[in-house]
Amino acid sequence: MPNYKAKIYVTLKPSILDPQGRTVERALSHLDHKNVGGVRIGKYIELSLSGEKSDVEAQLKDITENVLSNPIMEDARWELTEA
Amino acid sequence: MPNYKAKIYVTLKPSILDPQGRTVERALSHLDHKNVGGVRIGKYIELSLSGEKSDVEAQLKDITENVLSNPIMEDARWELTEA
Repeated sequence: MPNYKAKIYVTLKPSILDPQGRTVERALSHLDHKNVGGVRIGKYIELSLSGEKSDVEAQLKDITENVLSNPIMEDARWELTEA
Repeated sequence: MPNYKAKIYVTLKPSILDPQGRTVERALSHLDHKNVGGVRIGKYIELSLSGEKSDVEAQLKDITENVLSNPIMEDARWELTEA
């Protein structure tokens, strides 16, 4: 069975406040990086899957939407490449 | 001054154990996703910067390596696009 590598990006929806990002932004400002703004912190997940491409795609969509992200607060997108 | 958007990916070095990834992997296995392995969890950071391109690139390298990641345990890479 072919092997695939997936990269998953989970970000907070734009309307959700990101206190961790705000804290980093303030820290950068204190470090004299005053031209930096809009810091948003998300998750980046790598995993590998084995199986047929169509099965793996459906499975990855399920995992991304139902396990790795919270669709109420987060957006998630993924990329699949053959390993 | 032009504005730039940066995307920063921070991952644990391959030699560093990732207990959070292992936990997700086990959870997925219990949910019948037994063909999933090698789960590694990193950070994905978005931010915007204003300034001249060469200054912004140097600044982003500094921020990525010295503030947003720990070079002992983590790898970091970044992408810069004009906003």
